[in-house]
Amino acid sequence: MTDWTAYFTELDQLPAPMRATLLRDSRRLKFPAGTRLFGPGQPAGYLLLLISGRIRVTQMSETGREVVLYRVGAGESCVLTSACMLAYDDLAAEGVAETALQAIGIPRATFDEMMALSAEFRGFVMRAWSRRVTDLLSLIDDIAFQRIDLRLAARLLAMVEGDTVRATHQQLATELGSAREVISRALSEFQRRGWIEQARGELRLIDRPALENLTQGAER
Amino acid sequence: MTDWTAYFTELDQLPAPMRATLLRDSRRLKFPAGTRLFGPGQPAGYLLLLISGRIRVTQMSETGREVVLYRVGAGESCVLTSACMLAYDDLAAEGVAETALQAIGIPRATFDEMMALSAEFRGFVMRAWSRRVTDLLSLIDDIAFQRIDLRLAARLLAMVEGDTVRATHQQLATELGSAREVISRALSEFQRRGWIEQARGELRLIDRPALENLTQGAER
Repeated sequence: MTDWTAYFTELDQLPAPMRATLLRDSRRLKFPAGTRLFGPGQPAGYLLLLISGRIRVTQMSETGREVVLYRVGAGESCVLTSACMLAYDDLAAEGVAETALQAIGIPRATFDEMMALSAEFRGFVMRAWSRRVTDLLSLIDDIAFQRIDLRLAARLLAMVEGDTVRATHQQLATELGSAREVISRALSEFQRRGWIEQARGELRLIDRPALENLTQGAER
Repeated sequence: MTDWTAYFTELDQLPAPMRATLLRDSRRLKFPAGTRLFGPGQPAGYLLLLISGRIRVTQMSETGREVVLYRVGAGESCVLTSACMLAYDDLAAEGVAETALQAIGIPRATFDEMMALSAEFRGFVMRAWSRRVTDLLSLIDDIAFQRIDLRLAARLLAMVEGDTVRATHQQLATELGSAREVISRALSEFQRRGWIEQARGELRLIDRPALENLTQGAER
């Protein structure tokens, strides 16, 4: 296999014999958009490192509702959920290929061998882990303390293509860890103010500066 | 040092030479209630394993608000935050001794050595890690989707001693990742219904069955 370690900061600093082990035992994987990569009842067999594409990691609540926890992009590893799943199997998180993916899969036995052999690899895993925990803490902070209208405006601006956001109210609720009714109410208010127009399954942003102003009123 | 590994499920299964290393290099630590164990600007020097007492791990938001993330009890390790802090230093979580503590401190170098030498120790760390991530996911779920009055009733029932809960509105808000005004409003409603009485810095539960009924109306 060609040397893909250059895609991943820190892994390219592994000593040569370690890198050889990793290259020998890992597999190059491809998945079409929409593939469910892991989740309840389907433990991750590999630690996934993403060459290209994007994974959406979602929590399924016991009541059937969803929150987007974070996304994994190219050059990142899906280390938190994968490693948790390697260790312990009732994590309620699900990973789905949001786009077509190219990834490296490190099998469980190789992961364990590398953890034993290489302080650099342990450092890579622990730092990736702590970054994802930071993502979760910042999500907790947002959900607990940020006003939903500010978060919604910011999310619309992040998702817009041209002047259109393709998403249902339920999808926006899942993105923001909120309830559909709450999102519908905030969108109606945005529409009343002439900031957006709504159609089935999509929104048009009409007054982007007004939405930007609103997000800048956020507390951070 | 006496063999404390028996306090910790899984660690007592370490092979004898590993256990000897761990016992040789770890320290027995004591802290009075209220000690700040780690936090921004004060990285954890040790991985802490708790023999007795309780640690409260809180997130400090950038806006100065707090959420209780989880508590670490006797027989548990403070592995998530400590290990994140060993790896990466800008985690916004703070650990405080909620009671007087007796703990084992595993120094960073010993932690790293044990991770290299022992698959059992790696398993211990990864499982502890994944349990804490599960705690965080369940907190996200609660904050995002559970009605605050149900969560507040459940928390009052968990905190009551005799018939009294000693906590300010702000402390209850921090416990639940909510705002003080939201808690005050819910408590006023509980009082109006004759379920509680309020005094400065404490509450008296008058109609416990009514609070229990409310929590059973929760969606899970």
